[in-house]
Amino acid sequence: MKNHEIRIREANKTDVPRIVEMLADDVLGKSREQSTPELNDVYVHAFNDIDKDPNATILLACSGENIVGCMQINILANLSRTGTKRGQIEGVRVDSVMRGQGVGAFLMDAAIDYCKQHGCGLMQLTTDARRPESAKFYDKYGFVASHIGYKLTL
Amino acid sequence: MKNHEIRIREANKTDVPRIVEMLADDVLGKSREQSTPELNDVYVHAFNDIDKDPNATILLACSGENIVGCMQINILANLSRTGTKRGQIEGVRVDSVMRGQGVGAFLMDAAIDYCKQHGCGLMQLTTDARRPESAKFYDKYGFVASHIGYKLTL
Repeated sequence: MKNHEIRIREANKTDVPRIVEMLADDVLGKSREQSTPELNDVYVHAFNDIDKDPNATILLACSGENIVGCMQINILANLSRTGTKRGQIEGVRVDSVMRGQGVGAFLMDAAIDYCKQHGCGLMQLTTDARRPESAKFYDKYGFVASHIGYKLTL
Repeated sequence: MKNHEIRIREANKTDVPRIVEMLADDVLGKSREQSTPELNDVYVHAFNDIDKDPNATILLACSGENIVGCMQINILANLSRTGTKRGQIEGVRVDSVMRGQGVGAFLMDAAIDYCKQHGCGLMQLTTDARRPESAKFYDKYGFVASHIGYKLTL
């Protein structure tokens, strides 16, 4: 696959089932996501919240008509670091049959462009420590693993 | 100090200089923040972006008239974990003379209430690995250090 065959676009509501399929196609996601018809409304509701937030978007990597990668970006205004706006990355997935072919880097390049266009001076993300391959990708890409990522279930 | 003497409120524009003072009063923040008159406008501009975002706020812990702690919260809609909304915490500080007296826990309790009221099922934050005391606080509070936190300067 050559990267120039990949096209980036923002997601819309009709993409939700495919995004959920990708979120579930993952060693951790498979136990967290359930793409049943009953739950589809829950995901669509969540998508609508993202869609109506001017500081949030989901970028998709497409190969022809096929969605092969996704990544959510939130632009976070912040006082710290002399008021530096941050681009936060969530929910990164590449189709399992397309991994290792540069789709992730292509998506991240697009995310950097998006964040710069939106005035960010910093990007940030966390990756589950049980995903060593993801950590290797971010290390290689140039991200610095300076922080500990905490979660609290409410 | 008794916790019931602490009051929580949302920040407004006139609080910006004091918040910046607290952000700078920190082993890492002291090299990142500069509370000069010239930079005040930059911080106020960043505050205005937070203030006009319905999914962002800064909570302050106040002891009488004194602001003794601060914490930014962003409510992030998300598709993953069956569309679970997340409350993200940024820029946590407690006045250096008030540390170890429960102000941080009081702020975090208020943040949890805020996040629950805003429909979140998860809270998340990262802490710089060079702040072991902060990590101890989050461990003790019940946060799980499951993730690696990456940053990329743009």
